[in-house]
Amino acid sequence: MKIKLNCDMGESFGIWKMGNDEEIMPLIDMANLACGFHASDALTMSRSVILAKKYNVSIGAHPSYNDLLGFGRRTVLCSLEEIKSMVLYQLGALNAFCRANGVVLSYVKPHGALYNDMMRDENIFKAILNAVSSFNKNIKLMVLSGPKNEEYEYTAKLYDMKLLFEVFADRNYNDDGTLVSRMDENAVLHDELEVVNRIVNLKDKGYLYSVNGQKLFLKTDSVCVHGDNDKALEFIKLLRKALY
Amino acid sequence: MKIKLNCDMGESFGIWKMGNDEEIMPLIDMANLACGFHASDALTMSRSVILAKKYNVSIGAHPSYNDLLGFGRRTVLCSLEEIKSMVLYQLGALNAFCRANGVVLSYVKPHGALYNDMMRDENIFKAILNAVSSFNKNIKLMVLSGPKNEEYEYTAKLYDMKLLFEVFADRNYNDDGTLVSRMDENAVLHDELEVVNRIVNLKDKGYLYSVNGQKLFLKTDSVCVHGDNDKALEFIKLLRKALY
Amino acid sequence: MKIKLNCDMGESFGIWKMGNDEEIMPLIDMANLACGFHASDALTMSRSVILAKKYNVSIGAHPSYNDLLGFGRRTVLCSLEEIKSMVLYQLGALNAFCRANGVVLSYVKPHGALYNDMMRDENIFKAILNAVSSFNKNIKLMVLSGPKNEEYEYTAKLYDMKLLFEVFADRNYNDDGTLVSRMDENAVLHDELEVVNRIVNLKDKGYLYSVNGQKLFLKTDSVCVHGDNDKALEFIKLLRKALY
Amino acid sequence: MKIKLNCDMGESFGIWKMGNDEEIMPLIDMANLACGFHASDALTMSRSVILAKKYNVSIGAHPSYNDLLGFGRRTVLCSLEEIKSMVLYQLGALNAFCRANGVVLSYVKPHGALYNDMMRDENIFKAILNAVSSFNKNIKLMVLSGPKNEEYEYTAKLYDMKLLFEVFADRNYNDDGTLVSRMDENAVLHDELEVVNRIVNLKDKGYLYSVNGQKLFLKTDSVCVHGDNDKALEFIKLLRKALY
Repeated sequence: MKIKLNCDMGESFGIWKMGNDEEIMPLIDMANLACGFHASDALTMSRSVILAKKYNVSIGAHPSYNDLLGFGRRTVLCSLEEIKSMVLYQLGALNAFCRANGVVLSYVKPHGALYNDMMRDENIFKAILNAVSSFNKNIKLMVLSGPKNEEYEYTAKLYDMKLLFEVFADRNYNDDGTLVSRMDENAVLHDELEVVNRIVNLKDKGYLYSVNGQKLFLKTDSVCVHGDNDKALEFIKLLRKALY
Repeated sequence: MKIKLNCDMGESFGIWKMGNDEEIMPLIDMANLACGFHASDALTMSRSVILAKKYNVSIGAHPSYNDLLGFGRRTVLCSLEEIKSMVLYQLGALNAFCRANGVVLSYVKPHGALYNDMMRDENIFKAILNAVSSFNKNIKLMVLSGPKNEEYEYTAKLYDMKLLFEVFADRNYNDDGTLVSRMDENAVLHDELEVVNRIVNLKDKGYLYSVNGQKLFLKTDSVCVHGDNDKALEFIKLLRKALY
Repeated sequence: MKIKLNCDMGESFGIWKMGNDEEIMPLIDMANLACGFHASDALTMSRSVILAKKYNVSIGAHPSYNDLLGFGRRTVLCSLEEIKSMVLYQLGALNAFCRANGVVLSYVKPHGALYNDMMRDENIFKAILNAVSSFNKNIKLMVLSGPKNEEYEYTAKLYDMKLLFEVFADRNYNDDGTLVSRMDENAVLHDELEVVNRIVNLKDKGYLYSVNGQKLFLKTDSVCVHGDNDKALEFIKLLRKALY
Repeated sequence: MKIKLNCDMGESFGIWKMGNDEEIMPLIDMANLACGFHASDALTMSRSVILAKKYNVSIGAHPSYNDLLGFGRRTVLCSLEEIKSMVLYQLGALNAFCRANGVVLSYVKPHGALYNDMMRDENIFKAILNAVSSFNKNIKLMVLSGPKNEEYEYTAKLYDMKLLFEVFADRNYNDDGTLVSRMDENAVLHDELEVVNRIVNLKDKGYLYSVNGQKLFLKTDSVCVHGDNDKALEFIKLLRKALY
């Protein structure tokens, strides 16, 4: 299996910088670019697309709720028509910079609270599928891989859409393929080497170990990594080395 | 000459309504749709595109400075890179709703202070040409018709772009084709019938009368009308009748 | 009993107008003024305070979640520290215009989703009490009158705060003093005369009739009326006449 | 002469951090706190006031144009009534956190483009004086010290206001007390030791040397220092040591 790393990028806003995009971009395969609702702005988006193009990184739109102050981490209770519209708006805005630079917008990964809400509420999932599908059926929607992948794929097909399944490298999984709740103390893996080995194992053998030591065969189109601090950069370098 | 009427539309924001879009849309030929920076929002844009499609009205993007509070009427001093980016962003956002509804975004008309700044500053004009051209060279840029039309066209050609020249029906023009300054008391024509006759004359004979009574042959791809109050609606009805 | 009418006012934003503030202000006793988070802006607030002062209307701050696009009607999931801070911010901003005009900010009534969340979540209620109390203990907090008034008052006392209880004139109440749910078809009273009579009865006899015809003695410091359309204006005129 | 250091603080926004407020606050005398228009937000303001109080630092409001994206560095063409209102709004918002924490808001220093516009346009200066004066005449307005200090003071007296004059430690001055233009290559002093010596000299002898070596007796209530990067922190430490 080829493991593609996806990472949230382009999350600066105006004068405020976030992340080491210059250094991380060369190390990842897929850049989830913020579209101005939870982070980024027109100028930052322009530069982020140019940077991704420079390193031949796939570009994904990273739309969110309209919540700059809360970085898109707070659910804003919206109607489905609002959700569809706000996804289309952000998707189109980012697509303009892709077209202007002769590159393709290849996938959409909702951000933060919108991502979580999509995974727990089928109507929100459908509203997002509807938005992307109405714009361009070649754009894929990235979702969290888990026990219901086939149901998600079935629904996506209704909209003539394809999904990308991602795995969170630093999160523990239950035996059934769901994430260990963040309420639980072992929700997050803190040992970097353990996480790297986990991903290498996933690449070589196709499975992760669940929190109880069970082999977990999770469909994995991409592995999500974080890039917003110095430690993150070191981790991605380590991971990159281990994967090649 | 066929006279096409263009009108600023889709200028509501959230719960706040502006204009009689439902009633005016059937009466115009080209709708300048706000893109969320000075007015409108994702949901309003979605509905505006659907409404324009319903009446077979050409859709133009109406991008502006990032100034919702000031309705885009206040110049925000931006770099040219910022201007290019913000035009691309808004253009792309509106285009998403066009694509989703199977219609074409056919032109761009900058709004308010950005329009004025474009007409007086060649660098801003070029930044906007650059933005639109990099996105889609089939989209035309609407500018104010005046004595320097050929110079504008020459510049536009450098970007492989075509222009649309608009005339302001309710403004007086000097003999040289420039607008009578708003400082001047007769800058604006208040008599509706006079304005209607002016436009009918422009259509039938190809010229306006300047403020000094000179025949003024202004290139006219479109005539700009206002739609944000009840009087405006009555005026457009009158004008529509006179033109057909 | 003296019935004081409170009404949401100052809800325009930038160029977008809402409500007939000029005509309604003389007819009400208490103006709940938006503070820029769900509606209004600095200039509108300045003018709203001046208008309220002109008609000797009590001024209340009408703080909300940071959600201009959704008019504060959408819950934004915030921490209690965020809620306390955003209430203080808005309270202080409005207070500046009061001080500048030599009038007093006399109460706070949370708006929209924040109001509903305050009524159903004791921690949010306490965060708001905490905010107002830390600013000025003479400012009262307006809440919805209901079966738990004494509990609310007990909690308010912990913060050295006083409450104002309001009744919704156009809503039906259950026998226990709670509002009939909006899910229920008779949640809202649509007959204006019935609503007027209800309020006159409340003034003269001290009770409303519940949806089942029971006498309901609800503590009533103020009655909430709406002012955002022409019908609302007519209703308030009618009510004003009936009350004096 | 006692030299008081003022520094722009509280310039984070939401998740985006700016500056080393924790480390710089103990080293300065006066904190210019952003009020949410160019930086900061309600929660950040609350924490900034608490931090300033902890180190007994004077609190000043740092209001700006409504331009978060441009960090208040871009002029937004506003009416004087708008300027007065937006200053009052921000002043009041910050004042709420001061009152809630039992500290005093002691001065106002406009930020960025608003500061520059105030210094070059007497009407804007007056609009700001008018705003602050209407709120609380004990709050002082900080302006740039220069050859027209007396004229500024004369104008301030018309509004019953007092001024604070600040000097920019790292900027060269012309013989007449105006700043050397940023167009000029020696506008900014880059040698930290030179800047420290300059300020110590100002403290001990009461004058700076102009760019031509002339003694310049500039009224100095405060010296402005920057705090937004690591180098800045080292500089302030050095300066603090030299001053005591």
